[in-house]
Amino acid sequence: MNIREEAHKMKLASPKLAACSAEQKNQALSAIADALMAGREEIFAANRSDLAAAREAGISDAVYKRLKFDEGKLDSVIEGIRQLIRLEDPVGKVLLARELDEGLVLKRISCPIGVIGVIFEARPDALVQISTLCLKSGNCAILKGGKETAATNRVLFGIIHQAAVSCGLPESCLLQAELHNEIDELLSCDRDVDLLIPRGSNAFVRYIMDHTKIPVMGHADGICHVYVDRDADFEKAIPILVDAKIQYTAACNAAETLLVDRSIAADFLPLAARALKDAGVAIRGTKEVTEFIKAEEIADDDFRQEYLDLILAVKLVDGVEEAAEHINTYGSHHTDAIITENAETAEYFMQMVDSAGVYQNCSTRFADGFRYGFGAEVGISTGKIHARGPVGLEGLITYKYRLVGSGQTVGDYASGRRSFHFRDL
Amino acid sequence: MNIREEAHKMKLASPKLAACSAEQKNQALSAIADALMAGREEIFAANRSDLAAAREAGISDAVYKRLKFDEGKLDSVIEGIRQLIRLEDPVGKVLLARELDEGLVLKRISCPIGVIGVIFEARPDALVQISTLCLKSGNCAILKGGKETAATNRVLFGIIHQAAVSCGLPESCLLQAELHNEIDELLSCDRDVDLLIPRGSNAFVRYIMDHTKIPVMGHADGICHVYVDRDADFEKAIPILVDAKIQYTAACNAAETLLVDRSIAADFLPLAARALKDAGVAIRGTKEVTEFIKAEEIADDDFRQEYLDLILAVKLVDGVEEAAEHINTYGSHHTDAIITENAETAEYFMQMVDSAGVYQNCSTRFADGFRYGFGAEVGISTGKIHARGPVGLEGLITYKYRLVGSGQTVGDYASGRRSFHFRDL
Repeated sequence: MNIREEAHKMKLASPKLAACSAEQKNQALSAIADALMAGREEIFAANRSDLAAAREAGISDAVYKRLKFDEGKLDSVIEGIRQLIRLEDPVGKVLLARELDEGLVLKRISCPIGVIGVIFEARPDALVQISTLCLKSGNCAILKGGKETAATNRVLFGIIHQAAVSCGLPESCLLQAELHNEIDELLSCDRDVDLLIPRGSNAFVRYIMDHTKIPVMGHADGICHVYVDRDADFEKAIPILVDAKIQYTAACNAAETLLVDRSIAADFLPLAARALKDAGVAIRGTKEVTEFIKAEEIADDDFRQEYLDLILAVKLVDGVEEAAEHINTYGSHHTDAIITENAETAEYFMQMVDSAGVYQNCSTRFADGFRYGFGAEVGISTGKIHARGPVGLEGLITYKYRLVGSGQTVGDYASGRRSFHFRDL
Repeated sequence: MNIREEAHKMKLASPKLAACSAEQKNQALSAIADALMAGREEIFAANRSDLAAAREAGISDAVYKRLKFDEGKLDSVIEGIRQLIRLEDPVGKVLLARELDEGLVLKRISCPIGVIGVIFEARPDALVQISTLCLKSGNCAILKGGKETAATNRVLFGIIHQAAVSCGLPESCLLQAELHNEIDELLSCDRDVDLLIPRGSNAFVRYIMDHTKIPVMGHADGICHVYVDRDADFEKAIPILVDAKIQYTAACNAAETLLVDRSIAADFLPLAARALKDAGVAIRGTKEVTEFIKAEEIADDDFRQEYLDLILAVKLVDGVEEAAEHINTYGSHHTDAIITENAETAEYFMQMVDSAGVYQNCSTRFADGFRYGFGAEVGISTGKIHARGPVGLEGLITYKYRLVGSGQTVGDYASGRRSFHFRDL
């Protein structure tokens, strides 16, 4: 397959998909849900062959779980599609309507971005979520999933694509890339692809950013902090800290660093150390921390590391000001939490910490499209441009300006023969 | 000056500027307007020396006009600042408020992007507009203006910066870069600068995009079209076409290509040719066009060229479908107009043309922040990510998610001990 040619075909088809009505898109989603249900045995069989090959290659239990696509996961993606159908159509909303002058009306109307390339890890449920989010938002999508679930992906993609086309969506609405070298081809399609969403390791996202002219919406790091303030309730702090670290260590929203107000270090650190030890977490800390608890000593620059493992870095700070400064300097602007009962201190933290998510008295692990009630997410953005944090339907939408006149020229306004009156409608 | 160090200082100061109240920012804007008025003689003297040097270097009259900063331009930028003060504060708006579960409330709050680098052409009024737009939106800004007005820029910047700081805004809220090599230093500040907005030539914007990891919001081309449909009113078509081409040929929103429905070519082309000739415009066209009017013959690929001059490329098409396809293939997604009295044809055009501005029966030259009633603009984006078309205050804003809990952990939701109820507040 020639990705460049296919991407160009997709570009030409994209206004047709953008023009599809909400009803048509919802019908297609409904057909996709039904077809997935009807094709379950074929899907599971493909997945069993992927799993067998993966076992042979000696993958870990954690990865095995991610590759597996069973009844439970099928039910959950189908429930996700049903939720997506119920969500309001994000396309065609009038975001601004203004009469510039008599007979000259400007409207800003929401519309799909166009052609989106998504490169994601080996997780069959992600393929279903991403493709249906793109269709609901009227975007054509090129999907490249992880090779470990190639057979499952091929079956899922075939079912989804056929169901979409059978409901009248354009043939080129979805495309699957299967070969790794097709990623590099995709990166060169800056004339036809409007946005890339890479998911995966830090190094991988960085590689994508460095090798394309297409705008990239991805996150490159998840260095999340829990700051325990002098006014913290320890009964909240300990379970939150443990949850943020261990509930799913490989997730980008897992905590990597614990900051503790120096004035409570003697009381809090031993409690935290015990709870973390019970949870199997190894502690690293500054020299000062090692005076309170057993920890491997680390230097300031080590606080830039994303462990994604049962390891936590610990540092003492002089109050919320230094905590915010540390987070803004060493963090990755993903999600950071303060544990405090002091509303003023919390407000300062939430105002000053420059991250997509700023939390008080809850776990950083809540940073997720499902948990925010977005139905699904295509990824979590740590950039500040376009979309920030978990990206759902809204993040796949842009707008265009429509101006309807009756013969107006700018010369008439420049010369003063006519003038604008700007009245919002 | 070490731009990297200064940018890092600015990054640390940016949450402080973001936390400034609307009143404080408006006071600063008001102080800036007063200080500019008070410093008028010093500004004009600096501008006279810039103009003298430019004359000596032999610049054209058109450029001379752009460099000149006189009473009229001062009045107009001060009026712009007064307008900006009256605009609603874009920071701190609650964009979403949702109870995820009892005692767990999510809010999406608008906030400044942070640190923005703007590189712009030699136009002193642009320096005033950009710096005040950035301050109103709570963003720190690094400004690099064209060297031909270096003396004027230095005086303007000094006045603006001092007035801002005297009202309590952080010392590092604004920074001026003066040397060309400082641009390359700025491009390397991807850890501290959140967004770059380059203005200027196509090649320059492309250079910036190719040499930085910082997100870039710029336009690289302005290949705008006027399509004259078979249902066009020629009385509207001719003045709009002439205005779109000649009202300001050097602007990105000037028309470069005329598309004409083949069925009206014999009637329309001679009329258009006469009007364009009278306006001093040279016509280039496909072989077919030369059968109707005198024109230099060009090939399909020539339709990708941005002339920014008194030259217009002409092509015949089979109706609105082919017009839209030509525009989507050869255009730059900036602004494109259809001339037609047929509402259905217009709707098709506006839906199918994939540009920031889609117009009916008016000149492409209306694509501009002032003419849209935005008060001012920092540039016009032909990208689709974050902001599209003229970029005013809203384009300088992002958001963050605040989540306030009372000890919640994700483990409790994963295990089913608790569940989300998602109630919008």
